[in-house]
Amino acid sequence: MKTNQFMELALDQARAAAERGEVPIGAVLVIDGAVIAASGNRTRELNDVTAHAEVAVIRMACDELGQERLTGADLYVTLEPCTMCAAAISFARIRRLYYGAEDPKGGAVDNGVRFYTQPTCHHAPDVYSGLQETISADILRTFFAQKRDVP
Amino acid sequence: MKTNQFMELALDQARAAAERGEVPIGAVLVIDGAVIAASGNRTRELNDVTAHAEVAVIRMACDELGQERLTGADLYVTLEPCTMCAAAISFARIRRLYYGAEDPKGGAVDNGVRFYTQPTCHHAPDVYSGLQETISADILRTFFAQKRDVP
Repeated sequence: MKTNQFMELALDQARAAAERGEVPIGAVLVIDGAVIAASGNRTRELNDVTAHAEVAVIRMACDELGQERLTGADLYVTLEPCTMCAAAISFARIRRLYYGAEDPKGGAVDNGVRFYTQPTCHHAPDVYSGLQETISADILRTFFAQKRDVP
Repeated sequence: MKTNQFMELALDQARAAAERGEVPIGAVLVIDGAVIAASGNRTRELNDVTAHAEVAVIRMACDELGQERLTGADLYVTLEPCTMCAAAISFARIRRLYYGAEDPKGGAVDNGVRFYTQPTCHHAPDVYSGLQETISADILRTFFAQKRDVP
């Protein structure tokens, strides 16, 4: 599979999250061209405020592989990771981060604390941004517009 | 129980973590004077790079209470939270954060990205630092010194 196809899978996870009433962000974790884990946000389902899509796939992949670090892994996520997720991605030693739309309000890669440029960041992935950013942002916008319409 | 007694419990969790070969940091989550969750680092045990003591108690408490947020909760942790944990504490809407030793290399509260002072931080706990900081730092120092001595 190619880069765009992995991001398509992440978008599918975002759409599935919306259907479950979760904030529609999706992530896919890939090692050597194989999908190891895919998830959307699961904070409501699990009552777990840390269960963002990125953290969910990192946990699933570590569990699947029986290891704490994911050296050589590529992570595809539909929205710029937040501060918590940016740090988790660093701790997991993920090699490449591909993300969709930027998140000026909560992002921590190219916005906010720009964690990967900080002295307290001890591993930074290579970052590729803007993949399918329009669709990614549209899925989020539609979700929140529909929520506002519900009395 | 008083503040110092909760920090003593967090130190007990740190010592127990050391005995399991985990980096010795402990955390206790308290609501209305009652301990809801207590844990040390569990990253090795769970093969979960996100299972820092703070994230562990937040997840345990959310699970116990069946809710995503911990408004009104106080968190005691033996070391200054890292970037991931500082953000998770914010997302969980924790009211007060008490921590022991500062962590200039990895901390994100009074060092590093100082997350609670950033525009992308949408809830900041009240922070009380330096509780039992000498003991907290000694537990960590001893752990790493012993690790270096093992060939």
